[in-house]
Amino acid sequence: MLRTRPAHILLVEDNRMDIELTLDAFRERRLNNSVHAAPGGQEGLDYLFGHGEFADRDKFPLPDLILLDIKMPVVDGHEVLRRIKRFPILKRIPVVVLSTSKEEGDREMSYDNGANGYLVKPVSFDGFLEVVHHIDSYWLSLNVPPPL
Amino acid sequence: MLRTRPAHILLVEDNRMDIELTLDAFRERRLNNSVHAAPGGQEGLDYLFGHGEFADRDKFPLPDLILLDIKMPVVDGHEVLRRIKRFPILKRIPVVVLSTSKEEGDREMSYDNGANGYLVKPVSFDGFLEVVHHIDSYWLSLNVPPPL
Repeated sequence: MLRTRPAHILLVEDNRMDIELTLDAFRERRLNNSVHAAPGGQEGLDYLFGHGEFADRDKFPLPDLILLDIKMPVVDGHEVLRRIKRFPILKRIPVVVLSTSKEEGDREMSYDNGANGYLVKPVSFDGFLEVVHHIDSYWLSLNVPPPL
Repeated sequence: MLRTRPAHILLVEDNRMDIELTLDAFRERRLNNSVHAAPGGQEGLDYLFGHGEFADRDKFPLPDLILLDIKMPVVDGHEVLRRIKRFPILKRIPVVVLSTSKEEGDREMSYDNGANGYLVKPVSFDGFLEVVHHIDSYWLSLNVPPPL
């Protein structure tokens, strides 16, 4: 809604198998071309802050939605979320945590840091399909995005 | 998910007809018993901060989701949102704006103040049914809530 181009998604995830499963699920919904996978927290921040090659916003546009893993080495998802939500403009972008963790501490910290939503990472491909279906129908269709 | 009781929703809305349409749509999904309608911004804050009769949290539990109108007299939705998102514990509760406004300024301010999502208020009952269907399947089912 209110979008004049296909939605663009940034997936911040260090697990290669989870990246593939997520991209495959988006492919089933013909949305895979609009997903950029950042293989770690620092890479996700580099993309969002336009460091290095990512300075070219025509090629690497700000995403309409960020899917963020929590448990990553070096720069974890909590730190990525804190930096996003403290920075003007970037803070407007919906960030949905996609984590294997159901721990109270991770949920608490994520919402306290400003996560827009929190989803538990599925364990099967059918599960990924269902989650991506909901991400598409809620976040990329019904929800009205911020102006970027 | 991770919820041991029916989800509880706080609807902050000053327009009586919109309250009725929203409650009717929740009724169709058998969720109407768990919606508390606050007829204005101040009433919404009184509920959330447990003022007066709302101090009884058994009777008036903290909601799992807040649906928030923006354009309200006296205390508008932007102010309600700011107060929620500045207050420990309360800030964790997902707040979804439900407004007739598609204005860039309202969307910008809502996301900047920490709105978890933004939906445009439908103009027909079928529209309300569709929106409530998505609220139920995404926010009350798939999304993992914060610990409260």
